Amino acid sequence: MMRFNQAFAAGEVALVGAGPGAADLLTLRAVRLMEQAEVVLYDRLVSDEVMALLPAKCRRIDVGKKCGQHSVSQQRIGELLVHYARQGLRVLRLKGGDPAIFARLGEELDALVQAGIAYQLVPGISAASGCAAAAGIPLTERGQAQQLRFISAVDQHSATSQDWADLSAPNQTLVFYMGTAALGEISQQLQQHGLAADWPVLLVQQGCRPQQQIQLTDLQSAAAVAASLSTPCLIIIGQVALRYRQQQARLQLPTALQAKEQAA
Amino acid sequence: MMRFNQAFAAGEVALVGAGPGAADLLTLRAVRLMEQAEVVLYDRLVSDEVMALLPAKCRRIDVGKKCGQHSVSQQRIGELLVHYARQGLRVLRLKGGDPAIFARLGEELDALVQAGIAYQLVPGISAASGCAAAAGIPLTERGQAQQLRFISAVDQHSATSQDWADLSAPNQTLVFYMGTAALGEISQQLQQHGLAADWPVLLVQQGCRPQQQIQLTDLQSAAAVAASLSTPCLIIIGQVALRYRQQQARLQLPTALQAKEQAA
Repeated sequence: MMRFNQAFAAGEVALVGAGPGAADLLTLRAVRLMEQAEVVLYDRLVSDEVMALLPAKCRRIDVGKKCGQHSVSQQRIGELLVHYARQGLRVLRLKGGDPAIFARLGEELDALVQAGIAYQLVPGISAASGCAAAAGIPLTERGQAQQLRFISAVDQHSATSQDWADLSAPNQTLVFYMGTAALGEISQQLQQHGLAADWPVLLVQQGCRPQQQIQLTDLQSAAAVAASLSTPCLIIIGQVALRYRQQQARLQLPTALQAKEQAA
Repeated sequence: MMRFNQAFAAGEVALVGAGPGAADLLTLRAVRLMEQAEVVLYDRLVSDEVMALLPAKCRRIDVGKKCGQHSVSQQRIGELLVHYARQGLRVLRLKGGDPAIFARLGEELDALVQAGIAYQLVPGISAASGCAAAAGIPLTERGQAQQLRFISAVDQHSATSQDWADLSAPNQTLVFYMGTAALGEISQQLQQHGLAADWPVLLVQQGCRPQQQIQLTDLQSAAAVAASLSTPCLIIIGQVALRYRQQQARLQLPTALQAKEQAA
């Protein structure tokens, strides 16, 4: 494997997907770049396990945005990337999951382009792919889920009823990012627009990490189940979620319903 | 890195994402499983570069489905997985991209569950994530593309006009898999339902491979441009595609239009 060497030039920025959490879900290319990094700007969603692979002498800068808390602004992140690149350092921008999906990549690219900084872009395992594998389910299914939609719940506050009608079509899988706080509204809207109260919902909390918890529930119960979960939590809605039962049967895990009964 | 060891039991099937083509876009976990594989069933979309990482003594079985050509049926693939697992072999099922996305994973899981075969599922870099990184573009963009939709063009033959109205909403990114042959119809429908003739379309052919070709075009010209491309070709439709110009400016690549003018 040592034959793979990814060039990382002095003064270059590498925008790299750190994947969903488990360090061995990094790509070989990401690891090669991490080994050469001299300074890293990282998000809240990059796991400790991944961070532990960085060289000891690599400078670590936390630019994580925690929901509702003040942290480093997107403009400031752009300025920091340019600042360190201009010092001739190998600058690693580590983003949880895949940098192309809900990661505000465009704004960082603009900052680099405007400053004339060289960069490279390395994809990562998306949270959706990671969580689906962790739950033992596909995200599409022939004849049942021909479409797959990723939605940032943060942007759903401005959703129209037409949007909700589209999202309530049965032959698709919906994946909501950052949706835990909005899950009550999401569930209600989807039911009002035609999906059944027992339509399957899979909640994957801390997916692909040691603390991973997965709950199979439905639209009418999802918000109540999610209230006890911490973030990050990915929400997968659709018939494909029922396949988690195959994994439960194999590994004999309790369902959300059984867990509730056991706790009562 | 040698501390990562992924257990692969005798008689187990590992369903593993091979990513978009470049071997260093494999995950560490995928490589560990490949090193232990005794028999591999692989798709047409798994690259030669990835296949070259398998042990010399690993038995290779091509179950690739080439568009329009007769090949191994999905049922037969399930039977083969069970057959080799029952021989006590470590059976690797390698799928291009991510196994959860348009890869008929569910049917293979059913075969394994029904036969009582142990399995594990390892995510891969999806074609969409790989091609976006190769083109230097994000797939979502704040205020411009709040949704990301993956559509299998094979299933679009049965699309209703309501589906097309949804797909023509401007604030999203559409990614069509297996869409080259249907691109004429896709472009026409999206224009009839409200998207402009110059709405951006990015065609990524052989993404993340040495033969990679990327063309930035628009709805009115996409089918003509695609006619000269070979498969696999991923189609990315939406404003995010315009960011490919940043990469062209940086690397001074010709646009589809310029290439046409140069050829004339």
